[in-house]
Amino acid sequence: MLSSTSSVGQFVPPGPIPPPPKDPLPESLGDRVKTKLLGEPLNTEDLAHERLGKPTALAVFASDNLSSVAYGTEEILRHLVQYVGIAAFTLVTPITVVLLVVLAFLILSYRQTIKAYPTAGGAYIVTRDNFGLLPAQVAGVSLLTDYVLTVAVSVAAGTPALVSAFPGLGSFAVPISVAFVAIIAFGNLRGVKESGRVFAVPTYFFIVTMIALLVIGLGRLVFGHLPVEALNRPGLMPLGKAGNGWLQGATLFVVLRAFASGGAAVTGVEAISNGVPAFRVPEWKNARTTLVIMGSTLGAMFFGLSLLAAKMHVAPYEKGTPTVISQIAKIVFGGGAVGNVAYYCLQAGTMLILVLAANTSFADFPRLASFHAGDNFMPRQLTKRGHRLVFSNGILSLAAASIFLIVITQAKVDRLIPLYAIGVFTSFTLSQAGMAKHHLTQREPGWRRGLFINATGAFLSLVVDVVIAITKFKPAGAILGAWVIVVLVPVMVALLVRLNRQYEAETEELEEDARDAAEAPILRRHVVLVLVNNLDRSAARAMQYARSLTPDDLRAVHVAYDEHHAEHLAADWRRLGLSRFPLELVDCPDRRITRSVLEVVAEASADGNTEVTVLIPRLEHRRAWHKLLHDRTSDAIARTVSRLPHANVTFVPYHLTGRGRQ
Amino acid sequence: MLSSTSSVGQFVPPGPIPPPPKDPLPESLGDRVKTKLLGEPLNTEDLAHERLGKPTALAVFASDNLSSVAYGTEEILRHLVQYVGIAAFTLVTPITVVLLVVLAFLILSYRQTIKAYPTAGGAYIVTRDNFGLLPAQVAGVSLLTDYVLTVAVSVAAGTPALVSAFPGLGSFAVPISVAFVAIIAFGNLRGVKESGRVFAVPTYFFIVTMIALLVIGLGRLVFGHLPVEALNRPGLMPLGKAGNGWLQGATLFVVLRAFASGGAAVTGVEAISNGVPAFRVPEWKNARTTLVIMGSTLGAMFFGLSLLAAKMHVAPYEKGTPTVISQIAKIVFGGGAVGNVAYYCLQAGTMLILVLAANTSFADFPRLASFHAGDNFMPRQLTKRGHRLVFSNGILSLAAASIFLIVITQAKVDRLIPLYAIGVFTSFTLSQAGMAKHHLTQREPGWRRGLFINATGAFLSLVVDVVIAITKFKPAGAILGAWVIVVLVPVMVALLVRLNRQYEAETEELEEDARDAAEAPILRRHVVLVLVNNLDRSAARAMQYARSLTPDDLRAVHVAYDEHHAEHLAADWRRLGLSRFPLELVDCPDRRITRSVLEVVAEASADGNTEVTVLIPRLEHRRAWHKLLHDRTSDAIARTVSRLPHANVTFVPYHLTGRGRQ
Repeated sequence: MLSSTSSVGQFVPPGPIPPPPKDPLPESLGDRVKTKLLGEPLNTEDLAHERLGKPTALAVFASDNLSSVAYGTEEILRHLVQYVGIAAFTLVTPITVVLLVVLAFLILSYRQTIKAYPTAGGAYIVTRDNFGLLPAQVAGVSLLTDYVLTVAVSVAAGTPALVSAFPGLGSFAVPISVAFVAIIAFGNLRGVKESGRVFAVPTYFFIVTMIALLVIGLGRLVFGHLPVEALNRPGLMPLGKAGNGWLQGATLFVVLRAFASGGAAVTGVEAISNGVPAFRVPEWKNARTTLVIMGSTLGAMFFGLSLLAAKMHVAPYEKGTPTVISQIAKIVFGGGAVGNVAYYCLQAGTMLILVLAANTSFADFPRLASFHAGDNFMPRQLTKRGHRLVFSNGILSLAAASIFLIVITQAKVDRLIPLYAIGVFTSFTLSQAGMAKHHLTQREPGWRRGLFINATGAFLSLVVDVVIAITKFKPAGAILGAWVIVVLVPVMVALLVRLNRQYEAETEELEEDARDAAEAPILRRHVVLVLVNNLDRSAARAMQYARSLTPDDLRAVHVAYDEHHAEHLAADWRRLGLSRFPLELVDCPDRRITRSVLEVVAEASADGNTEVTVLIPRLEHRRAWHKLLHDRTSDAIARTVSRLPHANVTFVPYHLTGRGRQ
Repeated sequence: MLSSTSSVGQFVPPGPIPPPPKDPLPESLGDRVKTKLLGEPLNTEDLAHERLGKPTALAVFASDNLSSVAYGTEEILRHLVQYVGIAAFTLVTPITVVLLVVLAFLILSYRQTIKAYPTAGGAYIVTRDNFGLLPAQVAGVSLLTDYVLTVAVSVAAGTPALVSAFPGLGSFAVPISVAFVAIIAFGNLRGVKESGRVFAVPTYFFIVTMIALLVIGLGRLVFGHLPVEALNRPGLMPLGKAGNGWLQGATLFVVLRAFASGGAAVTGVEAISNGVPAFRVPEWKNARTTLVIMGSTLGAMFFGLSLLAAKMHVAPYEKGTPTVISQIAKIVFGGGAVGNVAYYCLQAGTMLILVLAANTSFADFPRLASFHAGDNFMPRQLTKRGHRLVFSNGILSLAAASIFLIVITQAKVDRLIPLYAIGVFTSFTLSQAGMAKHHLTQREPGWRRGLFINATGAFLSLVVDVVIAITKFKPAGAILGAWVIVVLVPVMVALLVRLNRQYEAETEELEEDARDAAEAPILRRHVVLVLVNNLDRSAARAMQYARSLTPDDLRAVHVAYDEHHAEHLAADWRRLGLSRFPLELVDCPDRRITRSVLEVVAEASADGNTEVTVLIPRLEHRRAWHKLLHDRTSDAIARTVSRLPHANVTFVPYHLTGRGRQ
């Protein structure tokens, strides 16, 4: 290349010779890091949807829902025991049954939603379609806060499953939980395929071990073999007015609060309605069937566990481990070798299903956030699919928010539970009400039945929501409570609305008369200012470039922040006879270079009809640390000068070879 | 402005109307923050030197030196007591006397330096002039590490002075020390004038209270009134083989180590030689006199304190407070009201002189670092005078380094002392040896005497340095020791030399044939690419600007990261009939916009003789948070594209009014 241009008498321009065509283009640092960490970038066309059969679909969508049994019974008992003592074991089963009635109505309601919205039946879409954008923000934000809580609660509950089995890890609960979140987030950034098989193994493993526990446990119960635990073991929750019977001790409030704590167990029902298109045809029918199977499985497990706990008097420990399930399993499976294996399998299954539940939020949160952003209610960056086709910014936001929650609650499930489930029941309420309105407006065949179901579903959800918000508003002795969500959701919605106004205003301003603007005549004059700090090849390169812009006026400008240096430069300039470009020295007594450049540019463009181009020579280094040897004044100049009208800043790179003389 | 351009049928260019001439130019955020925190920017011409009379000069330069008495005796005793028990009180005075001999030679030596280098006689300059750049780096780096330690030690010793008086603050030593450093650094960033008065008050206050202590103490000693302390008070350093007399217990090593610990007390002598130009004429004579007064004052105080401690059997406490001085003062001044006032005055004086000593390092470190940087051995940013004319980057570096040291040593003087004084004695050795060479080469009148003094000074400094390095290499039970400095200094020097090579290589490459390059003909073609994301006024503005560049080829380019959006844009483009600028859609299956732009630019400039200008429309927002709503892809594009030869990136700003329709 060098010889060919030289042979025609062409000047070899400063800067390295362009690479031969075969040479790879430079990869940006970000791309290199991403490829290293996350794998090769994926193409948009790789975004394909796997179609799932019912058993696989159950595995993919059920983890959030089924995993709730890991803490549902425990949270009900934790509240009852400390207020009503031994009466807790009389109350836990009825409360579970009431929750199962709520669950049944939720399932019936969502069967309606699946049929009506076979492509995307999430609360955001249903609410937006039936009530408009603002209520949709409420539904969406509520659900988003709940996804954050799902991650925090699932991971915080999965860690005790591990700690119950290996008590030595007890003091590392927070770092273990944070590591879980980090690993799940990393997997999702790489783009874990929602491949059925990956999900099926742990989900069915959990289901099988749990069924084994219940069958053996209930079997031993019927045949009278199950021991009843003593209630004076050290470390148990302190008993309330125990022994006086529940009539004296239990107030309606305590029962309602226990009910509210258990409410978390019936969440996760909405998952299937978000993913109907992933089912095999006929999608909505298969989805409905799967929903019913999922709900029944959850119901059976939840009921069975509560019943066993009640009969065996299994009370929660104050520090959370061993868990109620762990205690039940220890007794039911017995202490032999087989029993031990079964016990560890159950603990492993519980932990896996909880981790999967957190993983589900990592799929749902970014997608929901991208809906908000697509409607201009959240930063647009959330709509961008990243390196591996996932909504990377959403994944990172969710990870950050849930780690924050885990740290401030020290990964304690009982501190998180008061915040949990309010969001999801708010979104249930809005989306079921939306469905009710849908029936009223559309009047499709069977709409009366649908209206009844959805209206009841909406009403029940609202009741549960209000019960949770009131009974858990600020639990005694705790700082966090339902009030956080009650305050947070309206504040967030207000912020989102403000943000939306800003986007709309920008768009309106930008798109107005865009066409006329594009055809507008150019300004009268074009002035090019070359900022010169030293008389060197980078400045020379900038001046070469400046001349190709054929400006009306070309000026070399030096900001004299150091008198001595400026005199030296001016002398060099004269000595070399660079007469074509007179050097202009700009006084800068306070050494604020950026400010001085700003003044020069403002003066040059003062007539309002002059285009000013500011050329900043910039060294391009071969190694990152070389950059640290230079300050970043040029960035500051670019940022500040850009705030003037008709001031355009160009970086003219000079490529250092880093090898001394070429 | 609007109407005047409109009246001549001129198109009103998009973007806000230029501000009327009276309007203030936008201030950058950095400038606004700096002005708020540090005050109005100072002009370079404000850099004036106050000329100091001898009494004021003593106050300005003596704090580092005089403050050493606050910990000198204590550190000697601390080491002796734990190895030789009560024999410590026999040994402390002789060791002090030997240190005073070293001090005397240092003063004599520096009297020579002051005369020979009346403008700047720091170790760096003297070593560079006589031995060259590389030894100067060793001297400079040694001194820099010691300045960091001076700050850490002074502040860590000043805090116990406070804690001795107010024991309740004992557990806050680290935060108090860090706060001291932060306040001193902030004051120096604002540019505390080295105004004599500010320094004179605390310095003379300290001298007066200390003289009072010594006069009363020695007076009471002579008249037989001083009690001897018991050595079994709780909290005292554990006694070594006490009571057997020093012959059995004391090894040479223990004595040398005690001597090394006391070595810290005779540092700070070099301060005056750095500041000769600040004295009244005849500068060097006045400086010499002041040096002798300073040294004598230090010597008298150090000797008096050691003597009192020896006679009164004042032993250091294990946790550092109350300090030895505090114990002496409590006894000497007695318990009455007057005695109490005197005691608190002494504690306050001690604390103030220590803080001033730290402050002195904040003047010396940045200046010395700027010498290194001026010779291209440290990042050039260290030569820049900041907002308030001080070397801000040096101040911030010193603050960061000393806070780091304070935190890792938990602000314990005895953990810092093993690292201290090696650096300063290394620089003493080099600069005295330099002076010796100076005498040999210059042979000015009296050179033989000067040679003897400086050679002896260099030899003594070297001996002290070696003693410190060996005896404190790794104190038993401590992690940090002299080894840190022994390792750090060569590593730092190697880094500095590497950095220097990089600067030199850059300069050589940049300055080669700069003049030819400046006159070089322009490239054959100029292609302008306008990156278009939406058909809006910001894109229109970029196209308007593009046309003023009169390129050979003008192309509007859209990177089609989203197929749907790209089709929509292309349709709009056709519909509006923007025929003058055909829109080019660039395939981008992996959504890496930066990469696609890079490929387009590389192709356009592939012939090696084409100048490519990439125009990126960029929104300028009126509020910082509006910026967060947009991603920073344009920055990534600019960074990456700049790595190609002849690729110049221009940001074309479009100024949003934020008020909707104009």
